[in-house]
Amino acid sequence: MTVLILTREEDVTADMVVVHLNATGVPVVRLDPADLTDGVSLSGEFVHGTFRGHLSAGGRLVSIGGLRSVWVRRPGVPAARAATPSAWLTEEASQALYGMLRGCDARWMNHPDAARRARHKPWQLRLAQRCGLPVPATLITTFPQAAREFAERYPDLVVKPVSGAHPQDPPRAVPTSRVAPDTDFSAVAFGPTLLQRRVAKKADIRLTAVGERLLAARKAVAEDAHPDEVDVRFARDDAPWRPVEVPPRLASAVRAYLRDAELAYGAFDFAEDGDGMWWFLECNQSGQFGFVEVDTGQPIAHSVAGWLARPGPSAAAVPHQRRRRGGALSADQ
Amino acid sequence: MTVLILTREEDVTADMVVVHLNATGVPVVRLDPADLTDGVSLSGEFVHGTFRGHLSAGGRLVSIGGLRSVWVRRPGVPAARAATPSAWLTEEASQALYGMLRGCDARWMNHPDAARRARHKPWQLRLAQRCGLPVPATLITTFPQAAREFAERYPDLVVKPVSGAHPQDPPRAVPTSRVAPDTDFSAVAFGPTLLQRRVAKKADIRLTAVGERLLAARKAVAEDAHPDEVDVRFARDDAPWRPVEVPPRLASAVRAYLRDAELAYGAFDFAEDGDGMWWFLECNQSGQFGFVEVDTGQPIAHSVAGWLARPGPSAAAVPHQRRRRGGALSADQ
Repeated sequence: MTVLILTREEDVTADMVVVHLNATGVPVVRLDPADLTDGVSLSGEFVHGTFRGHLSAGGRLVSIGGLRSVWVRRPGVPAARAATPSAWLTEEASQALYGMLRGCDARWMNHPDAARRARHKPWQLRLAQRCGLPVPATLITTFPQAAREFAERYPDLVVKPVSGAHPQDPPRAVPTSRVAPDTDFSAVAFGPTLLQRRVAKKADIRLTAVGERLLAARKAVAEDAHPDEVDVRFARDDAPWRPVEVPPRLASAVRAYLRDAELAYGAFDFAEDGDGMWWFLECNQSGQFGFVEVDTGQPIAHSVAGWLARPGPSAAAVPHQRRRRGGALSADQ
Repeated sequence: MTVLILTREEDVTADMVVVHLNATGVPVVRLDPADLTDGVSLSGEFVHGTFRGHLSAGGRLVSIGGLRSVWVRRPGVPAARAATPSAWLTEEASQALYGMLRGCDARWMNHPDAARRARHKPWQLRLAQRCGLPVPATLITTFPQAAREFAERYPDLVVKPVSGAHPQDPPRAVPTSRVAPDTDFSAVAFGPTLLQRRVAKKADIRLTAVGERLLAARKAVAEDAHPDEVDVRFARDDAPWRPVEVPPRLASAVRAYLRDAELAYGAFDFAEDGDGMWWFLECNQSGQFGFVEVDTGQPIAHSVAGWLARPGPSAAAVPHQRRRRGGALSADQ
């Protein structure tokens, strides 16, 4: 059984995982959907109630029924590098590739539907609440008056995008910023705005979840850090990430989140306050982990490889591929 | 509890359903996400482990927690009609609106994730096979040689798009066409191609499923029809749609399909052959039903209204909103 990795050609993180997979002797096929139909080919036949499908990449042929797992890492836009690219060809190639893969029994890291759903920040906050993770008071609104009242109750606020990154090419991260006390919220009417109580944080926590395995890292906030430095992605890089134990009750809540979100991989960001409480900020289902592994030496790539290499499909991990075994109405042909 | 309908302003099908809903006295809010943030407003607050959200449209305010159902009919692109539209505003508005709605307990017709998945033709074919629906032999391929071999086994073929409609604005339906006997399949290498055994059909069947209710209609093929006329959407409109009974075993298979696909609504197209067998062609999760209702008098709009008006959220219908009741780690704020 083969591991299928969907990603771009240049992907150091995938390279790290492939090294571990190769060491286990598990067959790996790596391809970029952007190379459909020039370098990557596909074929699937639905005959007599059965499906037989194949993918070909780099001169290797792999059976879709023989996939043990699919890692949706950083796939390119289907057929983007075809000789004559078009929106129509991309749509056809996307439906053909993912439509066939969706019908197979492989385990997914992560399934496209779960990945898509998991990107919705309001949904994340609600799920985190329901799983018992501490969530800083948050408002998402287009009502200026609601923003003003929220700012009265929580005078120390940050503002961040509702969605992840600005959709330019390449996408641009929009920093989380502190809200000035005298802010005029009138402009809230022109676009949904996410306001969140600022956590007076002592450290940033990155918790990387790979299946059941949780690996947390902590980056202390500099003693002299200004309270306006709220976004770790844009902070001065003075402290390294250090491994940290995950509190058991928090681990249970995180596992509940992953189970409900149907995610095999998630990168959680928390803010640790003065009491040592970890406040949920977000869970990025495709978050990078290379920088944490480099700093901490935590075996994240090894864990990903281990999850992908696990034998056979797991019914629990493929809720979207539940198989029906009802009798056929007739032998179809 | 309110019914929320997401659709464009001009939508005769939605109008039909609203008439029935109004007759039941169930509150209805209808809005187009394109009118965010000019005409439609939203606000959601995540505080102390709970969520309180509201939508405002046409001067009416509705609580997101008070929604009994959401009908995703023909919604516009979020914020498309804003004063200063942009890809960024659309992304923010989309995440805010659907992110909040995804966290609520309303029943969906259809849930966005289920709808998205259900559009994949290869996935449809595989699910239909698994549910025991007869599926005509089908090949989806970029290998010319695979196409040639398939054409030798099944000399009478049609070709159709892998995806639904051509992504122009407005989208254009691409007709299913018969494959000539002497076809050269070399061009298959440049784009995935769907070839399917032609069913020598006596009638087209449109089966509209609304929850558990199945309403089927039959349109006989004209006696003098040429075998090249394979696509009912482009056929001469001589025969009307007539109500027809759904064979019980086929009804079971269709219900299994809907259950596995997590769809509350689906428009199934079948081709009836000379033996009276219904061959599965596709299931359109957002298929129109007005033309069938007009021809047959079947109460489809009434059924949709009935499904939407049903009291209270049904856990079975909202698999993506499973609620966790675990103890909170702490009272968050």
